[in-house]
Order: sequence, then structure tokens, then C-alpha cells
Amino acid sequence: MTFPGKWLFELISPDMILGYRIKKILYSGKTEYQSVDIIETDTLGTSLVLDGKTQSTSVDEYIYHESLVHPAMIAHSNPRKVFIGGGGEGATLREVLNHRSVEAVVMLDLDSEVVDLCRNYLAKHSDGSFDDNRLTLIHADAREYLLNSNELFDVIILDLVDPLEEGTAYTLYTKEFYTIAKNRLNADGILVTQSGPSGLLHYKECFSPIYRTLMTIFPDVRPYNIHIPAFGTMWGFSLAFAERQESEVFDYEAVDRKIEERIISTLKAYDSVTHKHMFSLPLYLRNGLDEETRIVKDDNPVFMI
Amino acid sequence: MTFPGKWLFELISPDMILGYRIKKILYSGKTEYQSVDIIETDTLGTSLVLDGKTQSTSVDEYIYHESLVHPAMIAHSNPRKVFIGGGGEGATLREVLNHRSVEAVVMLDLDSEVVDLCRNYLAKHSDGSFDDNRLTLIHADAREYLLNSNELFDVIILDLVDPLEEGTAYTLYTKEFYTIAKNRLNADGILVTQSGPSGLLHYKECFSPIYRTLMTIFPDVRPYNIHIPAFGTMWGFSLAFAERQESEVFDYEAVDRKIEERIISTLKAYDSVTHKHMFSLPLYLRNGLDEETRIVKDDNPVFMI
Amino acid sequence: MTFPGKWLFELISPDMILGYRIKKILYSGKTEYQSVDIIETDTLGTSLVLDGKTQSTSVDEYIYHESLVHPAMIAHSNPRKVFIGGGGEGATLREVLNHRSVEAVVMLDLDSEVVDLCRNYLAKHSDGSFDDNRLTLIHADAREYLLNSNELFDVIILDLVDPLEEGTAYTLYTKEFYTIAKNRLNADGILVTQSGPSGLLHYKECFSPIYRTLMTIFPDVRPYNIHIPAFGTMWGFSLAFAERQESEVFDYEAVDRKIEERIISTLKAYDSVTHKHMFSLPLYLRNGLDEETRIVKDDNPVFMI
Amino acid sequence: MTFPGKWLFELISPDMILGYRIKKILYSGKTEYQSVDIIETDTLGTSLVLDGKTQSTSVDEYIYHESLVHPAMIAHSNPRKVFIGGGGEGATLREVLNHRSVEAVVMLDLDSEVVDLCRNYLAKHSDGSFDDNRLTLIHADAREYLLNSNELFDVIILDLVDPLEEGTAYTLYTKEFYTIAKNRLNADGILVTQSGPSGLLHYKECFSPIYRTLMTIFPDVRPYNIHIPAFGTMWGFSLAFAERQESEVFDYEAVDRKIEERIISTLKAYDSVTHKHMFSLPLYLRNGLDEETRIVKDDNPVFMI
Repeated sequence: MTFPGKWLFELISPDMILGYRIKKILYSGKTEYQSVDIIETDTLGTSLVLDGKTQSTSVDEYIYHESLVHPAMIAHSNPRKVFIGGGGEGATLREVLNHRSVEAVVMLDLDSEVVDLCRNYLAKHSDGSFDDNRLTLIHADAREYLLNSNELFDVIILDLVDPLEEGTAYTLYTKEFYTIAKNRLNADGILVTQSGPSGLLHYKECFSPIYRTLMTIFPDVRPYNIHIPAFGTMWGFSLAFAERQESEVFDYEAVDRKIEERIISTLKAYDSVTHKHMFSLPLYLRNGLDEETRIVKDDNPVFMI
Repeated sequence: MTFPGKWLFELISPDMILGYRIKKILYSGKTEYQSVDIIETDTLGTSLVLDGKTQSTSVDEYIYHESLVHPAMIAHSNPRKVFIGGGGEGATLREVLNHRSVEAVVMLDLDSEVVDLCRNYLAKHSDGSFDDNRLTLIHADAREYLLNSNELFDVIILDLVDPLEEGTAYTLYTKEFYTIAKNRLNADGILVTQSGPSGLLHYKECFSPIYRTLMTIFPDVRPYNIHIPAFGTMWGFSLAFAERQESEVFDYEAVDRKIEERIISTLKAYDSVTHKHMFSLPLYLRNGLDEETRIVKDDNPVFMI
Repeated sequence: MTFPGKWLFELISPDMILGYRIKKILYSGKTEYQSVDIIETDTLGTSLVLDGKTQSTSVDEYIYHESLVHPAMIAHSNPRKVFIGGGGEGATLREVLNHRSVEAVVMLDLDSEVVDLCRNYLAKHSDGSFDDNRLTLIHADAREYLLNSNELFDVIILDLVDPLEEGTAYTLYTKEFYTIAKNRLNADGILVTQSGPSGLLHYKECFSPIYRTLMTIFPDVRPYNIHIPAFGTMWGFSLAFAERQESEVFDYEAVDRKIEERIISTLKAYDSVTHKHMFSLPLYLRNGLDEETRIVKDDNPVFMI
Repeated sequence: MTFPGKWLFELISPDMILGYRIKKILYSGKTEYQSVDIIETDTLGTSLVLDGKTQSTSVDEYIYHESLVHPAMIAHSNPRKVFIGGGGEGATLREVLNHRSVEAVVMLDLDSEVVDLCRNYLAKHSDGSFDDNRLTLIHADAREYLLNSNELFDVIILDLVDPLEEGTAYTLYTKEFYTIAKNRLNADGILVTQSGPSGLLHYKECFSPIYRTLMTIFPDVRPYNIHIPAFGTMWGFSLAFAERQESEVFDYEAVDRKIEERIISTLKAYDSVTHKHMFSLPLYLRNGLDEETRIVKDDNPVFMI
């Protein structure tokens, strides 16, 4: 590989950088809310980059989206009504609609231009899902919407951009927001949120405080994580149950049976063994989560670098 | 973070690069066998870099070394005699000597200068282990040594530099070498080798062919992996048993009990849950290993980029 | 300045790199002949980048184009008919048409798409010149055209892309081509060609062999150079006269008088003092040119890195 | 060239970066005053880098040092007593001692460790000059020294590190300091100071305000510049005369004669033609200097990026 050419660099620690050599720029511009780059690289295929941060790539997006969606959906006994916050690429939607039980999806993504760009340049991400008549797509603030709604959902999936200091998404990672969201869950409802990087160097940025914050609202919270190649690190998620669960969330064997029964297209990343991998956090991370004391609030938010 | 300054860049894919901002250079030079840099960064502490590739850092080395050493040692019923190939930092040695059962360790590291530099600049890595009288330290080629030896070991741990095209370590990742090594194991012996990156983008480089190759020699091979922050990806290991094991290598609960009984200093990365995490490979990776057909031979080696 | 973001990197020596932080991408694509990026940076404004090499920027293009065009035009007693090879941005054309004496310009640029992109995104570069009815714009190979033409020109200006190994422009920097070009000059005609970087580290790449090659065809050749900020180095040009000149090309005072008489718009880079600066080469460079022996031929071309 | 490896990056504009691939690190550490790196690169040989900024390299240092020293020394009718501020490499000293007329040199460099490192790792820079018995070397602050001294000098040469916001050298680029320095010149004395980058993109940082400031103290100031490859741009100097000069500083022909008469070793960069090149500033730069109004003062300093 040679150095000359166009590169995209992203910080992964204050003194570590991840660089992608850009093969082709499919789109580069600004919407009302954020900058958008859609680029091709040899290794990762087509990438969506918002405000300089890679959101997903055609090569590895299935790991992220299957890991975000299916643990919550499978943990629920019969998910019929689902709320998605963010997820402009439509891949989270795709995985939700992959569940036979789903009757209605409300998806809130602030930025309609990003959704349109993704439908155009990343069509395989949504794979036709935006045309599914179970979908209600609304371009508005997810917090505002949930606050003023009286709908109840079985599963709430938060596929939001990271909480950046210069952005506004950080208000969707606070105790106040999670309280609003919990109020919109049915009694046996489940919320899952992407929770930022969870590798040794980064879990304290968001992952552990988000976990700790959810613990103050939900009776049962299960953090998990998996390696996302395009992010250059492990990525964390938090599964929060409106009802306390048995000590093990569910027995692993059941996962494969439920996938078989409920899911239409074959999965590539998630099954019972992957589930075990994701929910069995390494010792240092369990210790780190135990030691966390910060509660994320509107007036005391967390930010990613 | 600002761009100007000294940086170390490493390829992690042909078009992806990981950059570390260098805070301080403790040592930079060449030995008879390789270039050596010992640097400080804010995030990773002190790093050993051989031929431009980060080998281990003071901040996260315990994840790598505990993951390399303990699954094999714990899987063995009573590891008394251990062989270490490579591992110049002395941290693999440290973790081996952390087992009460160990009576003798033979460690082969080609490059005595690297060992001396590590004892000087990375003293915490070995933490006095080089002075342990159970150790026989030999600076010679591990393959040559094992070929001409008639000793038998309970556990063989291969903590070798990556197989680079311009290097010579690739002859320690071939079927011929593994045959030599297996001949130096006791009947219930176990071999473990670091096996290169195992993330989605990289597992085909070394991890899957090494696994496949070991499968031709050993009756039972268990691949596993864990995220190593300083490598910017998941890292693979292969556990190879001279005897066929029960379908599960061992029950997870036994791990914690054995750690309690056998290990002197408290571990930070490895326990029964971490074991579950490491050995429960994600679905795409299990599929990838199943599809692998390459056998690594002296005349058909694998190389990392 | 922060590191994260989009960057363009260009080699300026085999181990030196120049990086520009990209503020905005106006266009990125491929024509039949080359890749084209039109980018904005804070420092250099809008840049045209062909095959990864910056051709000109809105902030400093006047230095390059005035330096390329005016020494030849001013040196000629009455330039009426001018040939331009390359120069797709239209800025060379703009400076040629800035001379009152010019009656006809034939401009050959292979790549009509680049010309169209420049007219669209870099309109100030040409500043309306493409609409001037003295212009004949032809999209074909300059060498082929000159070989088959029987027109004669007062001034031939070669504003070609650099001779890259993977490109085809290198056939426009050879003795064979210069012979063809000289045959299309009037008796008192003058040819000028951009000649690549001329700083201490780079002048041997193209500048000195081009100079040496022109010396085998033309009775009088005057090399000169000036600093082009966007190229990160000095840039060389060669002025070749069909007739031998007096020992000094012209007296410096005459330059300002001729500019006053002949040029319509005020210049920002070129005048008699700048002329003195450009043609008074530093000692090491004069020595380097004297020592050069290579003649560039079709079967012995020079390439830039 | 490949990307992986060790690099040194320096900003040359807020959004432009110059990167050098490090071949070998000869020394890296901190003195009482600054960080010091002495590195080898393929293109530039051995480089001295202070606080992350390349000061000089073995390949091109002669251009910088001949250009700094000889115009002032040659302009003086008989330079016998010379003051050098900074210049720790000893190359400025070397060029001063290259003048037969010199009887005494007082050199003030704050950082004795840098001088020792240069004598050790960059011995060719000083080439034995530190052993010349005409030299008095003092490690103290140049401003303090000149303020408290009653010596008078024929030539004062300021070879100081750049005025950085985090450094202290900026007090050696102010009206107050130049007033002190002028008081230590003989009636026909000359002061020359390095004045920072002078390319189109950078001359306003230091070059033009330093020029303007000197103009308030000295009756005659002549700015000049030359391309320094290792700095990636043109570099400016200011020649300030205690007495008003004839309109041309001196006739160019005299330069070569004086070099012949007065200088011992052959020069590689400076002669009458180079002199013409350096002092004939491009039009845009002359205009920029004319428009400058800032006076640099202790309480209104200039800083380089």
C-alpha cells in the first residue's frame, strides 16, 4: 500500500488514529444536521461517514446490525410493535422486519437527507425495507416524539449516532431520556441501545456510564459487546428489561430454536454461540462496569472523543 | 490531539492504518535479527515494537499474555514442564511461573538483545521472572532446538513474532514445525500458539490456515480469540491437544476453581466467563474456519501483511 | 489543527509527504484519461487534482501561470500566434489572451471532461477565456497534432501534466517531441515548458534532463524557477529559443516597459524583479544543470515520482 | 514508499502537513529547554529537530547557513568581530570562521546540551569550529547578554529557533530586542536575522512583521529569501544596516570578487547570482511587505504556527 492518495482518519483514542485509504468518493456534502461522506475502500466496501465518523460499511454492517437487533428481539416472547431511534441506513429496520412477529415499526430519524442518501448509495443496507408497509418513518427528534406519544412498544432499539460534544445526540443517552423511553415500553418491554466502544481503552467513555445509568431506571440491564472491524475496536450495547429476568437472560439453546422459528433470512453473525460470546464479558470489563459510578444526566452528559 | 509530532503507523489491512502518537522514544535500534523500538504513548504506556509491529504494551499486555498462557495451562491436569518459544518480553514466562505446579521452563528466544532490552525498559513485563531458577533461557532457533531435543513437555507455548515475508518466523507456523513440536509433548500434552489477527477482515491471513494445519497433526484443536487494543483488532490463538478431549474442553465452572487452586497472583483478564467469551467464536468466524482448506507447509507458508 | 478528517497526501520525495486537509469535495470521479478531484482547503482554496497530483489552486495559481506564460511572451517581439499544449484549467489561456498582440491561440488538451469540469468548478481560472473567439480548442494528442500540422507559431507553451510512469504525458517531454515542436515555430519562435520540481532534492528528476535535452535541439535554452506553495517546492520551467539570443535574454528594465505596453490586466507575480529572481538560479542548481548529461528520448524517458 | 513505519510530521500551514519517514533515530530526549530529536531520513540525511520542528539537515543545511551568514559578512567592509545568537549546530559559526577577516566570535546559545548533542551527532555541521580559539561560547540568554554587555560587533547574526507561542525565543524577535542589538553594533555594523517562512502562504506569520519592525530601528533593511528543502517552503532573512546604504546594497559583481578574496572554503550555495536571486523578491512578496503595518513588541509578539 502506498501513502499518497485520499485518506479518512478517525481518532480511536486521544493519541491513536485509524486511517482508511479512500478508493472512491460516492457522495460528499452537508445536510441540515451533519456532514455526510459515502466512500468506497478496498477492504470495507461502501462506508457511510457522518461528521467524520464511520457509521457502517457494506462489508461488516451485518455484525453490528444483527448484534444490535436480535438479542432484544429474541429475548422478547413476541415482539410485534417496535420503535427504532436513528438507524438512517435502514439496516436496523431490515433486521427488525426479518422477524415474522413484527406488525408495526415506528422509525424516527432526524435527518431525511441521510435516509435518502442511504437508499440511493447504500441500497443493500435497507434491502427494500423502507417500502415495507409495516413501517412508519418520521423525521423528527426521537426524544420529543416519545415524550409526546402515548404508544407502547414491545422493543425499543436505539441506533443513534455517538454522543459528540458538538452534536445533539447526547440528549438521547441520559437518564431523563431513558425514563421517557421506559414509559413507552409495554410491561414486558425491552430497550437496547448502542453504547459506544467497549475495548479496554475506551469503555469508560460511554459504555460503562450508559450501563450504570440504565441500571437506575431498569430492573435488569445486560451489557454485551462484539468486535466491529470498521470501528477498530469492540463495540458495546446495553439490553435493558422493563421486568427483572431470571439470572441468565435465557438459555443459550433457546436462541437457536427461536431464530429458526421466528427469523426469515439466514443470519451471518448472530446465533447461540455468538450470543454467549457477546454476553460473556472479559474480566477486566466486568470489573470496570462494577466500578462505574457515573449517572449520565442532561446536565452531566458523556461525550465520545 | 494535534497531528504534528512523531507517529508510528502500522498496517492493519492493505488499506487501513493504525497510528500511534509517540510521546517518548526510550530506545531505537537494530539487533542482529530485527529492528527494535521501545516507545511511550499516552494511551498504551510503554510499547515494544519489532520490525515496525507492536508486540505488546504495558497497558494491555496482560490481556494478551493471560489469554495465551492460561487456557493451555488450566486445561492441563498438572503442568510441570513447559516450553516457551519466543516471548522475549518475559511476560509469557511470568504467567507460566504464576502456576504453582510448574517445575521447569525452557524458553527459546533467538534474540538475546531483545531480551536484554525488555529486562531493562519493560521490567514489569517479566517482573523478575528471568531470575527464577526454574528457567532455562536459550538464545537459539526454537525449531532447531526442538528437533534435536529429546525432552518432553506438558505444555508448549508459542509466543512468536508474526510470520512476515521478510522475516524467518514463518517456519515456526508450518505443518513440519508442528509435527516436530508435537513429538516433544507428553501423551497428555497441550500446545498453544498465537495465531495472528482473527477479526472479520483478517482471520484468513493466518488464523484459519494455522487452525486447519494444526488439525492435520493434532486430534483436537480449539481456536479462540480476544480483543487486544494495541493491535486494533481481535487476536487469535489455537489450543492443540495431543489427546482427543470431551466435546467441551472443560466445564466453565472448573476454570475458576482451578485458577483459585493453582495460580499465585490474581488474574485481570482470564476467568471462566472470559474463557466462555474467547472460545465462543462468532458465527461468521466459525463458518470461515470451516471453509478453510489451506495447509501451511514449509514450501507453502502464510505471511501477515 | 486536528488530525481526524479527510486528507490528500502527495509524495514530494520518496520519503517525504505533503498532506492537505480536505474541507470540501466539490467533485471526485474518473474521466477517460485520469482521475479528477476538485477539493477545497482552507489554505489553498479550490484545487484541481489529477491522478492524485495537485495541478493548481485558486490561491496560488497566478504564480504558476504568470511564470509559465509571460517570460516567453515578453521575450518575443510580437507574439501573435500561440500554441498551448495542455492547460485544461484555462488559466494559461487567460494569461496568453492577456497579451494585446495575440491574434490566434490553438489549445490542445486531450481530456475534454477535465476542461468542462474546470469551466464549471474553477471558472475563475479561465475567467471567460474559453469564450474568446481567438481560441481554437481541440481535444486530441498534442504531439500527434503538431506532427501532422503545418501551422507555424510564435510561441509554444507546454502546460502538461507531469511525466508519470503510469501516464502517457512522458512522450511530450522527449527529444523527439521537442524536435516536432521546434519545427512548428517561426524563425524567431520561443517554446516554454513546465519542467517539474527544481528544488535541491528534486531537480534531477526532470528539470535538469529536460534542460539538457532541449539544449540538443534549440540554440539557446534558459531554465528558470519559482516557488509554488501548493507544490511544496520550487518549480522549474525551460525557455527555449529557435534563435540564439544575446548573452542576457533581455535587459530587466525592458520587462516592465513591455508589460506596461502589451498586457491588459495587472499582473500579481511577474515583473522585472521577479524575472531576475526566477532566472538567477542558485549556485547549486547551476552546478547541477552543468553536470547533467541525460538526454530524454522516447525510449529513454524520465518519470516523476 | 510505504506508509507503515515511524514518521515525523510538521505543520506548514494550519491545514498542510509535511511528513518525513524516519529511517533511524539517533537521539531522542529532552534538555532543560526543549525536546531534541536527531533523526536520519533517506532524503535529508541527519536532521536536528527541536520541539518538533526541523532546524537543519545534513543534506541542505549549507543553503540555509550560507544564506544566513554571507550576505551580511560580504556586505560589511571588514568584519572582524561577530556575534552569533543561537546556532547550536555550529554551522553558522563554521561559515563565520570561513571569513579570513574574523578575529573574534561571541556565540550565545542557551542550551548547552543541544550544542553537545550537535557536536556528537552532527559533527560535520560545525566541522571543528567549536575548537577554534577565536570563539567564546556562552550558554546564556542572548538578550540578557547583549543588554548587559558593552562590547561592539561588526556583524550580529541571529540564528534563533522560531518564535513559538509555547517557547521563549519570541522575545528575540521584538522591537525592544532589536534596539538592544543595534546598540551593540559598530557605526557601520550589520545585523541579520532568520525571519521565518516567506512563501506566499506564510510570509505574514513572521517575515513581513519582522521586516516592518526592523524598519523602525534601522535606517536600511533588506529582506531576502531562498528555498530550504527541509522546511518545505521559502525561508526569509532580514539584513539590517546601522547606516543607510546606496540604493543597491552592493553591485553584484563585487560579491564574487569579495568571496574570492575573503572566504577560505568554496561555497556551494552563495555567489553573486544567488545573491541576485535571494534579494529580488517576487512581486507578490514585495507588495505584501509594503502593506505590512505590524510592529512586533514584547507585549505584541508574533508566533509561528
